[in-house]
Amino acid sequence: MQIRNVKSSDYNIISPLINDWWGGRQMSEMLPKLFFVHFNHTSFIAEKDGEVVGFLIGFLSQSDSDVAYIHFVGVNPEYRKNQIGKQLYNEFFNVVKRNNRNIVRAVTSPVNKVSIAYHTKMGFTIETGDKEVDGVSVFSNYDGVNQDRVLFVKKVD
Amino acid sequence: MQIRNVKSSDYNIISPLINDWWGGRQMSEMLPKLFFVHFNHTSFIAEKDGEVVGFLIGFLSQSDSDVAYIHFVGVNPEYRKNQIGKQLYNEFFNVVKRNNRNIVRAVTSPVNKVSIAYHTKMGFTIETGDKEVDGVSVFSNYDGVNQDRVLFVKKVD
Repeated sequence: MQIRNVKSSDYNIISPLINDWWGGRQMSEMLPKLFFVHFNHTSFIAEKDGEVVGFLIGFLSQSDSDVAYIHFVGVNPEYRKNQIGKQLYNEFFNVVKRNNRNIVRAVTSPVNKVSIAYHTKMGFTIETGDKEVDGVSVFSNYDGVNQDRVLFVKKVD
Repeated sequence: MQIRNVKSSDYNIISPLINDWWGGRQMSEMLPKLFFVHFNHTSFIAEKDGEVVGFLIGFLSQSDSDVAYIHFVGVNPEYRKNQIGKQLYNEFFNVVKRNNRNIVRAVTSPVNKVSIAYHTKMGFTIETGDKEVDGVSVFSNYDGVNQDRVLFVKKVD
């Protein structure tokens, strides 16, 4: 498996995959083209035999010079348990450190138990919000009305 | 009227306004919370008597160190013709120049004739795409299948 930086034209490959990989959930609108155009140095694609099997889209916060943010990570369900996600995250952590930053943030929905378990396993801490959902602290209405979110943070120094 | 930088909590004020200002078009999903959290220094709000009357969300490209990108601009329809948009764009051009960048890019849909006319008036050039729609050059399928886009560019040095 090879990991390389994202380029603009990868949008045409990845965007159609997303709704498939998420089992039909309409997720591709969360990832418009701009993320593929403007955040190449902090976004990565994993390929196996020339086929995209995973990707991570992240960027450096422009509000907080210590922080980097992971916006979206996807792995082909047929390639789970192959440490693809782990390698993509580690690639991101490395570019964050090369940019002299040491805090990585990510956000997920409380319903996404797989994501919560995965980030916890990867060493992320769940930030304390204003209520609990199924034992997990969340920020209510974070991403709009009834759009509660779980906020993750990890030190990478 | 006052112009100030966006802060995270402005999301709660602006997100509900967007669909209203766009006449019911479902636009707020294009502007998730992350833009209000991570791009404060290049995003601006116009206020009149404490009320938000306009905003501009932009960021510095992290792929091209000459480029800045305007993602989303909104003005309360009741306050059009008050040069609010112009002041927001100029504020953005100024912060771009302070960051030693001289190219500003923006993208719109071919149906958005008001946006095309506005960007042209503001000195943006339309980039040559691969087809024409109503006499305007567009990039076909730029933001997904059947999602043609008009690409603008402006030098600000």
